[in-house]
Amino acid sequence: MIFFDNASTTKIYDEALKIYDQVSMNQFYNASALYHGGVESRNLIEKCRKNILNDIGATVFDQLYFTSGATEADNMAIFGAMKKNGKILISAGEHPAIYNFVRDMFGENFDTVNLQPNGQIDYEDLKKKLSPDVKVVSIIHVSNETGAINDIRRVVNIVKEYNKNIFVHSDGVQAFGKIPVNVTNLGVDAYTISGHKIHGPKGIGLLYVKKNVNLKPYIIGGGQEFGKRSGTENIPAIASMEYVIHRAKIEQKANFDYVSKLKQRFVENMADCDCVILSNNQCSPYVISVAYPLVKAETLLHMLEEKNIYIGNGSACSSKKTDNRILQAMGVRDELIKNAVRISFSHTNTLEEVDILSREIKNCVAKYKKDVR
Amino acid sequence: MIFFDNASTTKIYDEALKIYDQVSMNQFYNASALYHGGVESRNLIEKCRKNILNDIGATVFDQLYFTSGATEADNMAIFGAMKKNGKILISAGEHPAIYNFVRDMFGENFDTVNLQPNGQIDYEDLKKKLSPDVKVVSIIHVSNETGAINDIRRVVNIVKEYNKNIFVHSDGVQAFGKIPVNVTNLGVDAYTISGHKIHGPKGIGLLYVKKNVNLKPYIIGGGQEFGKRSGTENIPAIASMEYVIHRAKIEQKANFDYVSKLKQRFVENMADCDCVILSNNQCSPYVISVAYPLVKAETLLHMLEEKNIYIGNGSACSSKKTDNRILQAMGVRDELIKNAVRISFSHTNTLEEVDILSREIKNCVAKYKKDVR
Repeated sequence: MIFFDNASTTKIYDEALKIYDQVSMNQFYNASALYHGGVESRNLIEKCRKNILNDIGATVFDQLYFTSGATEADNMAIFGAMKKNGKILISAGEHPAIYNFVRDMFGENFDTVNLQPNGQIDYEDLKKKLSPDVKVVSIIHVSNETGAINDIRRVVNIVKEYNKNIFVHSDGVQAFGKIPVNVTNLGVDAYTISGHKIHGPKGIGLLYVKKNVNLKPYIIGGGQEFGKRSGTENIPAIASMEYVIHRAKIEQKANFDYVSKLKQRFVENMADCDCVILSNNQCSPYVISVAYPLVKAETLLHMLEEKNIYIGNGSACSSKKTDNRILQAMGVRDELIKNAVRISFSHTNTLEEVDILSREIKNCVAKYKKDVR
Repeated sequence: MIFFDNASTTKIYDEALKIYDQVSMNQFYNASALYHGGVESRNLIEKCRKNILNDIGATVFDQLYFTSGATEADNMAIFGAMKKNGKILISAGEHPAIYNFVRDMFGENFDTVNLQPNGQIDYEDLKKKLSPDVKVVSIIHVSNETGAINDIRRVVNIVKEYNKNIFVHSDGVQAFGKIPVNVTNLGVDAYTISGHKIHGPKGIGLLYVKKNVNLKPYIIGGGQEFGKRSGTENIPAIASMEYVIHRAKIEQKANFDYVSKLKQRFVENMADCDCVILSNNQCSPYVISVAYPLVKAETLLHMLEEKNIYIGNGSACSSKKTDNRILQAMGVRDELIKNAVRISFSHTNTLEEVDILSREIKNCVAKYKKDVR
């Protein structure tokens, strides 16, 4: 089986699973307990928090909260920072964990920043849409649909120049470990990272929050995570995530270079195939959105599946998908959107796999072309 | 090491960890993906959902949502059922996942039902406090502090007789697998169960919701869990939880009888010790709250720790604890509250361990008695 849907999820590293198991067996004590085992659990969590803060470019004075995943972390950031009657400004290219949350939780109190045809936000439109009502801005770092990279530092500069009290969040799920990420340099007030997108366990994510930024808690109960995120801590997953965060951090540059070659090879292979590549070469190499005008996305996906090759049809994070909001916002024609698939790489893929994928796609396109004649 | 803090968390069964590992390795695909691997992930989740519904006495027509744990499930139930300007009625003995959530999220719009000295709610007070404003009632099934068992069927009858449209939730974290639980017989609209309290993984819980009851979602994003709880599904933990739920269900009666003997032995052993047992014999045998007037709770806890025996000082779910709201609500004197510890059993404990615990407690009490003279 060849897996090219790594933006939807990734297989956990053996080492990360081993850590999960070891902590499950040896350090299962509730971190709120006062006895030695509980204190050790607490110390393990705090060690992980400190190490992760370091790996993402933050300091020990900053805040970091473990959540059940990126969706919760995104929800938590927006809810926690939102002020009564405030307005939220997000990009048209946000993941549903921001887009749908803001729409469903805050109704009319939000506006969207337009996307450029390359998938990045329109920075001039961001400037235009800032208003005295705006309390929260959330702009995705790397698009899960196209790999388009937003310049978050530029976003922060634009927003803070307008009003330094506006809270700026970025969803970094497809960014951390893939492109260089340093939350201090980005200047954001909060930043979301997921475990299972970087070969970590499912059910764990985190929200970085800059020091002195005070968020209202969202999940409320026993007061864990400094009162900001209650619920018995998922220590095995936290320890496992610390491992994958560190590994992602130290391998980022090498993996980026390697995956860039995979993408480049794929693009070269497609040169003589009837397709439109929607992710330009400024995008993250990890995600490529490509439309085959002759074949519907779902058809291509299932044809490849027969050859044991898995690709995505747009974001698999979204469990029901009738259209593609993000490609629409980029101005992609409706006919092409129906034909757009998402191929997403990991450093665990090989050039040979890319060649097999390319060959099979071409076979499918050729076959379909013949079939429909 | 002897572990008597099983109400705070439990060690995962080897078999449950094995399932977690196997699913992590073999079924890591995103359940929203359209290809075969994704469909298999989806099927696995739905098989677990169906089996768990059966094990808790529900039908396939009822709803069940996987969450990151009981805290989130409790929050989700209340938030999801709450109506604008409605009032919430909870017991004074709720876990912080209900008590603190309601207090912090809904401010003044809640009232508490008094506890009887035995730790159960005062059913007459419940009747008195129902009013036309009340939209949501949440009463814990088994107290995490004392093991006091509320008659949830009676609660449902009282509430529904007053107004059948009031939503009734119960937190069953300390009940399921320990006392008989059948959600249909209980008649609740929603019920919370945790994984890690019954030897399952941390970071997973569930909310049962009766058919035709429509909750607003709380965690919002890609629309997973039928749009009610977004976020990539934690399939390894879901499969592992299915195992522990089933095991808890089939072993419930035998484990209850066995743990009852452990509690009975402990109570007998304490007959000649200076203590006040705050959990009467109508309580769940799994939790016993006991105060040693001569020794402060924290002192006793640390003295036992020296002997490698771990007990709780009240609920370890609560990470900061300055007082004990629940014992106070039962009318326990403040001096005794300072001296109350929580001993909580699992079927994995032995009579011999209970005897060692009892002996060491008596030694501590005797020593302290001598020390303070």
